[in-house]
Amino acid sequence: MRILLCNRDDRPVDAWLRDLHRLLPEAQVDVWRPGLPPEYDYALVWGPPQQLFDEQPQLKAAFNLGAGVDRLLALRLPPGLQVLRLEDAGMGVQMAEYVCHALIRFFREFDAYDRQQQASDWTLRPPRSRADCPVGIMGLGVLGTRVAQAVRQFEFPLLGWSRSRRDLPGMRCFAGDGELDDFLAAARVLVCLLPLTEATHGILNRARLARLRPGAYLINLARGALVVEDDLREQLDQGHLAGATLDVVRQEPLPPGHWLWAHPRVTLTPHISGMTVREDALRQVAQGVRALERGGDAPSGLVQRARGY
Amino acid sequence: MRILLCNRDDRPVDAWLRDLHRLLPEAQVDVWRPGLPPEYDYALVWGPPQQLFDEQPQLKAAFNLGAGVDRLLALRLPPGLQVLRLEDAGMGVQMAEYVCHALIRFFREFDAYDRQQQASDWTLRPPRSRADCPVGIMGLGVLGTRVAQAVRQFEFPLLGWSRSRRDLPGMRCFAGDGELDDFLAAARVLVCLLPLTEATHGILNRARLARLRPGAYLINLARGALVVEDDLREQLDQGHLAGATLDVVRQEPLPPGHWLWAHPRVTLTPHISGMTVREDALRQVAQGVRALERGGDAPSGLVQRARGY
Repeated sequence: MRILLCNRDDRPVDAWLRDLHRLLPEAQVDVWRPGLPPEYDYALVWGPPQQLFDEQPQLKAAFNLGAGVDRLLALRLPPGLQVLRLEDAGMGVQMAEYVCHALIRFFREFDAYDRQQQASDWTLRPPRSRADCPVGIMGLGVLGTRVAQAVRQFEFPLLGWSRSRRDLPGMRCFAGDGELDDFLAAARVLVCLLPLTEATHGILNRARLARLRPGAYLINLARGALVVEDDLREQLDQGHLAGATLDVVRQEPLPPGHWLWAHPRVTLTPHISGMTVREDALRQVAQGVRALERGGDAPSGLVQRARGY
Repeated sequence: MRILLCNRDDRPVDAWLRDLHRLLPEAQVDVWRPGLPPEYDYALVWGPPQQLFDEQPQLKAAFNLGAGVDRLLALRLPPGLQVLRLEDAGMGVQMAEYVCHALIRFFREFDAYDRQQQASDWTLRPPRSRADCPVGIMGLGVLGTRVAQAVRQFEFPLLGWSRSRRDLPGMRCFAGDGELDDFLAAARVLVCLLPLTEATHGILNRARLARLRPGAYLINLARGALVVEDDLREQLDQGHLAGATLDVVRQEPLPPGHWLWAHPRVTLTPHISGMTVREDALRQVAQGVRALERGGDAPSGLVQRARGY
């Protein structure tokens, strides 16, 4: 079989080729460039150009080297192309770390203690009530489930919302548009792990952010376009939201001078919450290629293109 | 039965009396003051004066309203007095939060990302290797075990050291003085949860801190006197230690002008990692009182006075 690799410029292509050869020795792998003959079976892609799919209409499947497929699905893809996305691939534990860090930093007021240290101020702050700090997770796929498992260790009341109903241990689960308002009204910390689709674009707008409990905190590590950033700013400035930790923004890299860089209630990171781990990613790709070659059950990470994730 | 309460000045005595009355309605409870007749059975204490024990030699047991009994055992106590300490009492989850926050803040370089945000710098930092960051926990009692359970969620290699051998799932366990050097040499992040005793006073000195892997990180939330602070400063300044998060120091409150306030590699909090939760503490006290009245098995939290914890 023949495989095309079209990865990010900042990733060392030699290491990807070497590991892919080790995990799929039967494959011939080429790095994509314009003008290659239409002879490839599979493509491993991260942010590929439209030209790749225009020149390779015979591809059986494209493996997205990340969890979110919104940019890939925005291209014109061959109608029969199967799209697969990374599911955990080493990202789950990183995202669990990211969320727990931001959650505890907020709940235990570690920013305030940092300021106290700067002022040589040894003052105990009254502890906050855990019962008054329910954590709501939007998106209960592989990553949301892994994050919930880690948050549960810290004994916060746990809420979850997903498009179709899930049932996770120790979590009060809400489902669908009809239960979204109730979910939001019950949450103090909102963790956003939703896929970006037509249905979720701008889902966190003024009305929905205002539904959260007063003093709420937003943690978004999914996609920037899930949030209406001007509405977020308004809720922060009015004090309804106590703060936000954002790993993703609408325009990445965030342009200089953007208000999010300097807002005192915003903690910002450059889309690092879940970085692809080459070894884990390629192991999932190799399993997926073998499953597709064998036929039968749908391989792990198969995207429903019409649904968008 | 008659109970004396001698708590910290900053805790609302009414609420403690009310909850104690609810949980132990058969007890008559008085707040300690000098000159009370020697008629009490139990004392609930936090930082009590020597005078209390001098005037009440008939006490059957003293319940320490915290986990560490070093200050209580430094007093002259009646020879037959039983000493009990809080075991979890709501502190375990708080300490798990504290450790995981400090660990992830170090491992994921969130301080560096904060500085990048201040400079409007959208640069991804190369991820660190989890395999190169073994977390070693010193002290594997109720609190150490609870902390280990939370750290395990984040898939770091996990090491533990205790005086007598323990066997915890997913942890490489070391025991006793003979294995301390090997334990230290294997750890990148050192979490200190030891009781302060004659045997552990100053245990983290120059030689032992130097044993840790280069670029190591110290998290101390037990007692300040476990660490030789001048030796810590030397290891930080030489760069052998990448940093330290300290919730406890030798002199509390830390005096103004002390080097720890301003050291760029030190994060300091005012002994807040595990705050006593009244409800949980009094529930354990009530269980302990009932167990002592009943006789038979040793109640939970009974201190071996000769051992020091």
